[in-house]
Amino acid sequence: MTHLLPLLRDRRSVRAFDPDHVLAATDLSSLLEAARWAPSAGNSQPWAFLVARRGTAFHADYVDLLAASTRRWAPAASALVFSLHQAAYDDGDGLDLAYSDYAAYDLGQAVAHLTVQASHLGLSCHQFAAFDHERLAREAGVPAHWRVTTGIAVGLGVESDVEVRVRRPLADVAHEGRFGNPMSTTLIE
Amino acid sequence: MTHLLPLLRDRRSVRAFDPDHVLAATDLSSLLEAARWAPSAGNSQPWAFLVARRGTAFHADYVDLLAASTRRWAPAASALVFSLHQAAYDDGDGLDLAYSDYAAYDLGQAVAHLTVQASHLGLSCHQFAAFDHERLAREAGVPAHWRVTTGIAVGLGVESDVEVRVRRPLADVAHEGRFGNPMSTTLIE
Repeated sequence: MTHLLPLLRDRRSVRAFDPDHVLAATDLSSLLEAARWAPSAGNSQPWAFLVARRGTAFHADYVDLLAASTRRWAPAASALVFSLHQAAYDDGDGLDLAYSDYAAYDLGQAVAHLTVQASHLGLSCHQFAAFDHERLAREAGVPAHWRVTTGIAVGLGVESDVEVRVRRPLADVAHEGRFGNPMSTTLIE
Repeated sequence: MTHLLPLLRDRRSVRAFDPDHVLAATDLSSLLEAARWAPSAGNSQPWAFLVARRGTAFHADYVDLLAASTRRWAPAASALVFSLHQAAYDDGDGLDLAYSDYAAYDLGQAVAHLTVQASHLGLSCHQFAAFDHERLAREAGVPAHWRVTTGIAVGLGVESDVEVRVRRPLADVAHEGRFGNPMSTTLIE
C-alpha cells in the first residue's frame, strides 16, 4: 500500500470501544461537518444523521433496536449514529432536497468522510447493519421518503487483538478500459 | 469547519484540469488501493473500476460516451475512471462476491477513499453522471449483475476561479435521537 494516506491505510472497523470515553462536542461536530462537506450528485446532499451519545435516553432507545450480534459490542462506543439517505422526492418536510439516483452512493461518501475524520481525531468507527431499520424509522419519526441505511458506532477503539484485514486482489477490482481486462503491469506495480 | 482534516476541508470538484499532466503509475495504483481498502458490508467489496488514462484508445472510447456537458471539461483530466457496483448476485463471472443491499453505499465509500487519496497526492477528482451508462456497459463488456454508476475525472486541477462551496446547514443534517430534533447547542458549536 505504497503512498497510501496513513488515515486510509490504518483505518479498521474496531469491535472494542473504551466504555468510559466521552465524545467531546467539538469532535462530534467535526465528524458531522466532515460528512456534510462530502460531494454529491448535483450537490443534492441526500443525507441525514440520527445521533445519540452514550448515557442519554436516546442512546438507550437505540441500544434496544440493535440485533443481539451488534449489542455485544456497539453500546460501549461513545455514540451511536444512524445514517439516512433520501429515497424519493421530498413530500413536504420543508428540506426541499432534489432526489437523486445516487443518494445511497452519496451517503456512502459522506459516511466515509465521517470515518476518515474520526481517524484524524484518533477515534474509530464500526459500521453495522444488524439493527431493526423499520422500528428505528418508526420510533425516530423518520419521514417516508428517507431510508434508514447504516448504523455507525463511534468511539475510542481499544482493540488489541487485531484481525488481519483482507481484500480482493487489485487485479479483480481494477480493469483497464474493458471489464476483465487487467491493468497493464506498467500501470499497477 | 474547526478541526476538520484539511484533505476533507479543502477538497473540491474542480472543473479545469491540466491537459499535459500525466498520471504516474504509482499514483494510479495508490488511488485504486485507497478504494480497495475501504470498508463494506460484511467485507463484500462490491466495487469495480474501469480505468483509462488520457492518450490511450480506451480513453478516446470513453470520451465518446460523455454527454456534451461533461465533454467540455473531463477529457483534459489525466484519467477517466468509471465506478461500478454489484447490483445482484454473481451470475458466474468467477469473482464470487456476496451481493449486499449496501452495494451502492459501499461503492460511494470506496470512491470517497479514492478521492481523499487523490487530494493527498495533490490531485483532484470531479465525479460526474452525465454519460451514456448503458453504452459503456455494453461496449466495456460489463456483466449484467454489475451496475455502471459514476464517472470520475482524475488529474491535476488548475482551477483558479474558485466557486464558493455551499451545503445545507448542519441543523438540517444532524438530528439528536429523533428526526427533526435539533442537536443540543452544547453538542453543536
